[in-house]
Amino acid sequence: MTHRIASIPGDGIGVDVTIEARRVLDAAAAKYGFSLEWTEFDWSCERYAKTGAMMPDDGVEQLSGFDGILLGAVGFPGVADHVSLWGLLIPLRRAFQQYVNLRPVRLLPGTTSVLAGRKADELEMVIVRENSEGEYSAIGGRHNAGRPDEFVLQESVFTRVGVERIIRYAFELARTRSQHVTSATKSNGLIHSMPYWDEIFAEVAAKYPDVRAEQCHVDALVARMVQAPDRLDVVVASNLFGDILSDLAAAITGGLGMAPSGNINPSGEFPSMFEAVHGSAPDIAGQGIANPVAQILAGAMLLDHLGETVAAQAIRASVDEVLTAGETLTPDLGGTATTTALGAAVAASLR
Amino acid sequence: MTHRIASIPGDGIGVDVTIEARRVLDAAAAKYGFSLEWTEFDWSCERYAKTGAMMPDDGVEQLSGFDGILLGAVGFPGVADHVSLWGLLIPLRRAFQQYVNLRPVRLLPGTTSVLAGRKADELEMVIVRENSEGEYSAIGGRHNAGRPDEFVLQESVFTRVGVERIIRYAFELARTRSQHVTSATKSNGLIHSMPYWDEIFAEVAAKYPDVRAEQCHVDALVARMVQAPDRLDVVVASNLFGDILSDLAAAITGGLGMAPSGNINPSGEFPSMFEAVHGSAPDIAGQGIANPVAQILAGAMLLDHLGETVAAQAIRASVDEVLTAGETLTPDLGGTATTTALGAAVAASLR
Ligand SMILES: CC(C)[C@H](C(=O)O)[C@@H](O)C(=O)O
Ligand SMILES: CC(C)[C@H](C(=O)O)[C@@H](O)C(=O)O
Repeated sequence: MTHRIASIPGDGIGVDVTIEARRVLDAAAAKYGFSLEWTEFDWSCERYAKTGAMMPDDGVEQLSGFDGILLGAVGFPGVADHVSLWGLLIPLRRAFQQYVNLRPVRLLPGTTSVLAGRKADELEMVIVRENSEGEYSAIGGRHNAGRPDEFVLQESVFTRVGVERIIRYAFELARTRSQHVTSATKSNGLIHSMPYWDEIFAEVAAKYPDVRAEQCHVDALVARMVQAPDRLDVVVASNLFGDILSDLAAAITGGLGMAPSGNINPSGEFPSMFEAVHGSAPDIAGQGIANPVAQILAGAMLLDHLGETVAAQAIRASVDEVLTAGETLTPDLGGTATTTALGAAVAASLR
Repeated sequence: MTHRIASIPGDGIGVDVTIEARRVLDAAAAKYGFSLEWTEFDWSCERYAKTGAMMPDDGVEQLSGFDGILLGAVGFPGVADHVSLWGLLIPLRRAFQQYVNLRPVRLLPGTTSVLAGRKADELEMVIVRENSEGEYSAIGGRHNAGRPDEFVLQESVFTRVGVERIIRYAFELARTRSQHVTSATKSNGLIHSMPYWDEIFAEVAAKYPDVRAEQCHVDALVARMVQAPDRLDVVVASNLFGDILSDLAAAITGGLGMAPSGNINPSGEFPSMFEAVHGSAPDIAGQGIANPVAQILAGAMLLDHLGETVAAQAIRASVDEVLTAGETLTPDLGGTATTTALGAAVAASLR
């Protein structure tokens, strides 16, 4: 079986780590009897600097026939974030209705948590982040510009369709895990959007009597994530809250160098897109010191999505083995190995 | 000198801990030669249940002549948060232009951080939270109600006046501390409000060349707060981000039972209001087990604000002494003492 994959390495260390993820995925394909047909796209801030656009006008169309997308990272000094990200990452998430941003975390072997005394099994959870609407809205703008009474509006938009489907996804996922969903809210401060979110959460929860449903204000939830992470499993959150919670979850489980994510279109109508949670880190780009683990694990999520679950599981096992051995670690993990050496070690350890 | 203080114990453990803060403040007044004239207000969810309003129509007027306000907490099951909080806490913050929400944290003696290996001097910081506008806006509502295309809008409002004054306050504060301000942003996701926040941050920063100014996306910032808290000192943030960051800061420094806050009107035109960061915790109310330390420290902040800095410092020293002795600790701190016993011990140890 052949899967057609679009690779968009992007900027900075996105390029460094995507090469390694491809290396590992190709090795897994060879071993497990399927093949990956890669097409690479140079969409990036470099392209923006040359052409004035992060991707071509028909970029969405060009990608739409692929079975999956592996994205590095975008963003580079000199190009404003809202240009680079809103010129590539955000429009792709939306055009392909990748309304689920799935961010599983666990403490990998050989790494320690910043939290005192927490063991790996207390630190396993998944953030189900709404990925298509909410606080990330392009609606808004500046008024009375240049005057002392100048102000800016920023709209958040929560649709019934959008809220319902992400919460439903979280409950379905909880059925495959520990039957427990925690919803991030802030209905005491954001009195329109979050009471609505809570209302739909209660409606959906009523349809899953087998799943324990609870809600928690996002301020209390960040506190709880560091004080009692063992009492969280599936956390469902709006776009912004999910962004914040998933970085915190990554930080308490070995750091951003280890955290993969999937931008998923559950219907399969459009391609899904996989990426590390970390950004392009221009300050360390091209030096061969970036940690490729997050992107390799994003690649494993891509294989899961393609139905190649045995290969995906083998990649995760290989990452665990290499980290446990501790002989080929990048500097952020306390070693001296290069990005390539770590990628090659994971590819070589596949079994 | 006599200071006229309004006390609003509110609901739940707000009542339990406010009594203790008053006890300690009265003891400090007696010792340091000033007096406190207290007026108590029963504004609460109980009042709401009886009268349909958290506070009387002229509530703001009734409070406006006081030198300061000590608030317990509001919120009780059966009264929606957006009723209780937006019927009391939020309108007071706004009517009195308490646009600074100051939330200092430090690791108190006898407590340990959830973060591995962090010492007290690495965990001292202050969150300067915008307290009057931003994401906490009453503007918004539901559209197409009951239809499949139903949606809800929630507006955020950032004014030049509002953003400028909170950032300026943070820089002034930084001059009295370690000359370092970190601004929480999310301009890559919230493309109207946060680029505006960043723009004004840069303008203000230019006027304080002696202060090191940096900005950090809020997702990266929560990660940094647990991975490298020692590299933060003054953190300035919008209303919502400040809420999230201050709960996390409290969680890594001994928990919410220890974290005070001040809602400050810097001009002094209106009274400022002091409260614990924690809520009303109805589940443990009235049992004599609530930790009063946060509220006692909020009382110390009130004294600072009134210019009684020697007494305020003595209260903090007394709290430290009682916690170090470890003989009168509430259950959350690992002891068996009551709320009253801990309050009385702090009052008795003043010197
Ligand atoms: C209760 C709630 C509205 C409030 C807030 O978010 O402002 C509280 O969490 C706080 O931090 O004071
Ligand atoms: C880069 C930014 C727009 C993005 C987001 O907040 O969605 C990133 O932080 C992420 O989490 O994927």
